Amino acid sequence: MQQQTGTAPLVTLDDITAARARVSEVAMRTPLVQLVRDREPGQVLWCKAESLQPTAAFKVRGAYNRLAQVLPQARRRGVVAQSSGNHARAVAWLADRLNLRAVIVMPHTTPAAKVGAVRALGAQIELVAPEDRDARAAELAEREGMVHVPPYDHPDVIAGQGTIGLELVEDLPGLSTVLVPVSGGGLIAGIATAVKALKPHVRVIGVEPALAADARDSLAVGHRVVWDVQDTGRTVADGLRAASLGEHTWPHVQRYVDEIVTVTDDDILATMRHLALGARLVAEASGAVAPSAWLHGVAARAWGDGDGQVAAVVSGGSVDPQLLVRALSQS
Amino acid sequence: MQQQTGTAPLVTLDDITAARARVSEVAMRTPLVQLVRDREPGQVLWCKAESLQPTAAFKVRGAYNRLAQVLPQARRRGVVAQSSGNHARAVAWLADRLNLRAVIVMPHTTPAAKVGAVRALGAQIELVAPEDRDARAAELAEREGMVHVPPYDHPDVIAGQGTIGLELVEDLPGLSTVLVPVSGGGLIAGIATAVKALKPHVRVIGVEPALAADARDSLAVGHRVVWDVQDTGRTVADGLRAASLGEHTWPHVQRYVDEIVTVTDDDILATMRHLALGARLVAEASGAVAPSAWLHGVAARAWGDGDGQVAAVVSGGSVDPQLLVRALSQS
Repeated sequence: MQQQTGTAPLVTLDDITAARARVSEVAMRTPLVQLVRDREPGQVLWCKAESLQPTAAFKVRGAYNRLAQVLPQARRRGVVAQSSGNHARAVAWLADRLNLRAVIVMPHTTPAAKVGAVRALGAQIELVAPEDRDARAAELAEREGMVHVPPYDHPDVIAGQGTIGLELVEDLPGLSTVLVPVSGGGLIAGIATAVKALKPHVRVIGVEPALAADARDSLAVGHRVVWDVQDTGRTVADGLRAASLGEHTWPHVQRYVDEIVTVTDDDILATMRHLALGARLVAEASGAVAPSAWLHGVAARAWGDGDGQVAAVVSGGSVDPQLLVRALSQS
Repeated sequence: MQQQTGTAPLVTLDDITAARARVSEVAMRTPLVQLVRDREPGQVLWCKAESLQPTAAFKVRGAYNRLAQVLPQARRRGVVAQSSGNHARAVAWLADRLNLRAVIVMPHTTPAAKVGAVRALGAQIELVAPEDRDARAAELAEREGMVHVPPYDHPDVIAGQGTIGLELVEDLPGLSTVLVPVSGGGLIAGIATAVKALKPHVRVIGVEPALAADARDSLAVGHRVVWDVQDTGRTVADGLRAASLGEHTWPHVQRYVDEIVTVTDDDILATMRHLALGARLVAEASGAVAPSAWLHGVAARAWGDGDGQVAAVVSGGSVDPQLLVRALSQS
């Protein structure tokens, strides 16, 4: 990792290259699926379908890159994570494969179906008050010596998500723009680091729900802005409700990300429909946020369409069937 | 092609290997997406996601393998095909990319949305009575010297679809069983030829809707059985309503396919839901037929589960949104 004056060291391309050797043991090299925009058949978006990972989202990359580096400890003491969503599923799935004890700390507000899915993978669940989840995971790690796998704010997690950036650069020789959803910032921190190291002229654009635009605000004012969780909780994109970027992710975003744009919840739902019918991909709301910026011209307004290839990360597919039906029933 | 006494020559592994060099210019090497069966988390089906092809189905492979071998003629005279579905879309898309004149003969019963989608790709549409479509396509080829690209019953088309078999054998070293949907038989003829040439012990099982089981009957009695189109027209799997195997496809099926099993329309709809939620793949009804045999234990009953890897071709994703909503609304 490269030292940055006065702050934590930044993740480097070497870290991400090293992560790839680990990540390829468990994760899929996801395909790029073409999506064509209505009325403009020549315009193609390359959808990086992380929704097809065995755990339904990109989270397995970063989680495994952390876990693989502390495996002896994890075998002795187990692993702990806090998440109600795709990170929980990734850690539980990895623990099941690796035969590790896993404790997943979940807010007691988590839907029963999500709790059940993680429990079915053999993980032990601890339901806590939403505001206590970070403290409880840290406490278990401290007291029982368990390995803590954070959802985004760790250099190993950032490096693991960055492997997507390597694949994008390799698979799209004409890449000009990458659209990435932003919540805690682990995904975009990793991808931006890899892409800017290999192809500095490629634009990396973050996309947030307009109802949870703390990262856009942070980039605008030059320091980390925190939104109230009462506010970020409003968006249909329930995987993107983190109230702020992390301590580790923020310096990467500030250094490497060109711009952060926002999309409305209506745009997100329309994009879920468009992905299902136009690219045959099931995306959860959070997973549809990045393609939504392209489909609804947000990124085009910001950057112009140019000649190069545009890619967007379809980050996850853990969709509530009722929400998918709602999205499909719109026209 | 290998000569067979008294019939047309069979497609060979060499034909399929040669097809691969062509097909890779236009088609995606589709990923294998894991689907886990309810209540048996250790059991995995590897879904070969042909639904992610740029034209939403495997048809682009065979169509291009035919077209690429007669490109000078196609450039001079154009190309003609008859189909209301994924084959029409594949030929129109290829013609658009290659700048060829294309005439697509469609039955006048084709839904307007499908006609419009093919027209949007720049193809000229001829609507004819359903029973006249083969004759009309042949007439155009004959009279105007256009290249005719048949939907399944041609050695080049069979060889093109067979490239899926090469990919399956390479990507799944422990492959024991392949499940393939059957209509006119081009897909299974190609896949079975490739798989049996490379790994003779791998089982190749065809899957048909119970309402259009002419291929199962054919294999049972040892000659091509024709079902009435009034009967095959009943299944929800509208891509699998061909009334019989083809003259070219049948000898491959007879020689290489181990068994043909059937699934009900209810099973097919339940599988569409399961693919969407469990593998994040949108499949049309016909595209869900092969995984349905695994999910509902049909293939397991026939063959035992064994230790090897089981793969199923998710052949297409051109789904009517209303049907997808219907499938998702069941539980």
